[in-house]
Amino acid sequence: MSKARNVVVAQSGGPTPVINASLRGVVDGCRAYPGIFGTIYAGYHGIEGVLKEELLDLSAQPEEELCLLSTTPAAGAIGTCRYKLQAQQQEDFERIIEVFRAHDIGYFFYNGGNDSMDTAHKVAELAAARGLELVVVGVPKTIDNDVGDPEFRLIDHTPGYGSVARYWALTVQNANEENAGSCPADPVLVMQAMGRKIGFIPAAARLADPGREMPLLIALAESGLTLADLADAVNDILRRRGRCLLVISEGFPVGDLGERRDSFGHTEFGASALTVERVVVNYLNRVGLAAQGSARGNMPGTDQRHNMIYASTVDLEEAYRVGQKAVQIAVKEGGGYMATILREPGPLYNVRYDKVPLEQVANSERRFPPTWIAADRLDVSDEFVRYARPLIGEGWPAIPLIDGRQRFARLRPLFAGQKLPPYVPQARR
Amino acid sequence: MSKARNVVVAQSGGPTPVINASLRGVVDGCRAYPGIFGTIYAGYHGIEGVLKEELLDLSAQPEEELCLLSTTPAAGAIGTCRYKLQAQQQEDFERIIEVFRAHDIGYFFYNGGNDSMDTAHKVAELAAARGLELVVVGVPKTIDNDVGDPEFRLIDHTPGYGSVARYWALTVQNANEENAGSCPADPVLVMQAMGRKIGFIPAAARLADPGREMPLLIALAESGLTLADLADAVNDILRRRGRCLLVISEGFPVGDLGERRDSFGHTEFGASALTVERVVVNYLNRVGLAAQGSARGNMPGTDQRHNMIYASTVDLEEAYRVGQKAVQIAVKEGGGYMATILREPGPLYNVRYDKVPLEQVANSERRFPPTWIAADRLDVSDEFVRYARPLIGEGWPAIPLIDGRQRFARLRPLFAGQKLPPYVPQARR
Repeated sequence: MSKARNVVVAQSGGPTPVINASLRGVVDGCRAYPGIFGTIYAGYHGIEGVLKEELLDLSAQPEEELCLLSTTPAAGAIGTCRYKLQAQQQEDFERIIEVFRAHDIGYFFYNGGNDSMDTAHKVAELAAARGLELVVVGVPKTIDNDVGDPEFRLIDHTPGYGSVARYWALTVQNANEENAGSCPADPVLVMQAMGRKIGFIPAAARLADPGREMPLLIALAESGLTLADLADAVNDILRRRGRCLLVISEGFPVGDLGERRDSFGHTEFGASALTVERVVVNYLNRVGLAAQGSARGNMPGTDQRHNMIYASTVDLEEAYRVGQKAVQIAVKEGGGYMATILREPGPLYNVRYDKVPLEQVANSERRFPPTWIAADRLDVSDEFVRYARPLIGEGWPAIPLIDGRQRFARLRPLFAGQKLPPYVPQARR
Repeated sequence: MSKARNVVVAQSGGPTPVINASLRGVVDGCRAYPGIFGTIYAGYHGIEGVLKEELLDLSAQPEEELCLLSTTPAAGAIGTCRYKLQAQQQEDFERIIEVFRAHDIGYFFYNGGNDSMDTAHKVAELAAARGLELVVVGVPKTIDNDVGDPEFRLIDHTPGYGSVARYWALTVQNANEENAGSCPADPVLVMQAMGRKIGFIPAAARLADPGREMPLLIALAESGLTLADLADAVNDILRRRGRCLLVISEGFPVGDLGERRDSFGHTEFGASALTVERVVVNYLNRVGLAAQGSARGNMPGTDQRHNMIYASTVDLEEAYRVGQKAVQIAVKEGGGYMATILREPGPLYNVRYDKVPLEQVANSERRFPPTWIAADRLDVSDEFVRYARPLIGEGWPAIPLIDGRQRFARLRPLFAGQKLPPYVPQARR
């Protein structure tokens, strides 16, 4: 029997409330096979940490902190990074192999979306070409639910989505209590949701009110509507109900927002001069409301992807399990796969954990099923509700508090020793 | 012994997560004295409901719904209204007396802030002048904590404040997890807090981090700083820490926001063309950050005053008790008072419920103690933390969920019969 080899786990892209539940799943999974896995390292701040040889030692962390990972949102624990490995950044890829070789890394678990699965696939190929024995397994994650194929065959839903869906269900419920109770001051409340290309997040607002009792409009980026269409719909509902809640995608086309671009040429939506919510509020107030008072807006922004008490218990459990599954795949099937969550047929919600080839995920693209958008383009169908409802779970998660504050995991800064000369990632030069 | 007389309870102004806990306190209080209080009505949508003779019968509601009031935020249950009774709206005042007389109302409990206590006082005076026996008692409420005097002698804190303080403590904690974990994309997160004139709400962000470990700046409207000062401070902290969280008051002076005015001439801040958060984000991105990446912003807006799971258990309990206290005052002391919460001296948090004359509250004005603003104008003092910390409580409130959604009180539309001709409130004509 060959000796145990070390592990690197890294996260990529935007945070979720359950990202660290998957991390804990990977750690617990590896510990269940002590003969196979040696030291478990985290790439500190994602793949950039691997490039910089900043490997956080997870095996040496206090047990309590590792347990608390499950109820710690976002990526304060080991960090994530939007550093993107482009195919042409060959030096970066070679550096990863070099770092892995220096630290006897035999297993690489990469948590992220489509792009990350592509990166994982490329790392696996290069390792093989360079003669490094490396098992690479992906762990899915994204609040947008945009990983996989449109028919939900590669994955039913991504960890992270159920929690942001729950965020919107409960947030809209609360907002409706104010909107219903306050007379004329603010008859219209516009709320901006994330997911700039794909409508799963704003769609989840429907979970606040599956019986359609609220005066709620949901405008996906995919709706095909204009600002003028929105104003007509808002005023129509104001005439009938006297008030209106409008949940709108940050990707709804409202014209120029004064987007900025980052150093990689990606649009930085968060840093736009204007927001969709603000454009819509101003437009509604300018054209005039069919009710006394004015429109106002809320923009929860990043809160929807790092709010811990709104995490779904189902999502937390699945994120953990899919992390463990990735380890099991590595042990039993070898590399080249992403762990996945598939829904069993039948009226009761039930999932099984399985594997899909990384390459297949990397080359797939999901969109919001067009048939799930309602005929008026301002709602989603009951079929969507049947799909999404089980993902938000039933109860509140148990988030520990100490002295009135949330007690999040605090990992100690224990790093693997540097064995290689310093390296500046290509895109940072 | 004289026969029981009926009750009107009404709410005024902005909602809070605990407003209905006070309502339940009044209802439970009245029920404890069946010989004294008859039917309990709510002014539907506040004082405007009284003017329109829309009196919701609370005595006839299902027990379950009345119990659920305690965990129902905002004012969907009986409504609140920003309808303001100006001193010169004499007709409105006369109408209130007329409605009260028609329904044999002997007790009026009014839940609100300074202005509402002034209204309550005027109603009491007019009732006396018109020969209507009416006991008027105020119930304090406002998230801004701006009721009372600067020395906390009239009231230590208002119900509602502890919950929005907890909202900011936990929200900033969550935001810090993302800010700490994500490298360069968004090194600065600006979060806009309510309370446009008085800094208690943004100040509560400090409760996220009393030990001052986070790179957190808190900019009150009272700070006396400019946008340029803010940018300097942000860049200074970026140089030292590489990231920054900035909580800023919606009243921080940033120049013209394109405010709208409502029909009463009040500025509608929620409907401004621009928000402080957006102005600050754009300014920071324009002058440039001392770190790679850009600034982005979150604007939770009304969520901070209607988010139920962030309600403080201490606030919920106190809101309920102060509602009951108002009833006890009505029975034992008569009218002309506001029920109040006073803090007992000593190191352990402890309050007593007492009474203060309505007139005294109406003519008082609280401001954020200048000595509680730190020397650098971008933080608050430990003295503030000692004041505010007990108000956020220790644990999560128990918010019932059914089918994954929050189960809020749903009162039945049971109204007192109309006994008077219809009436259009003066400011609505």
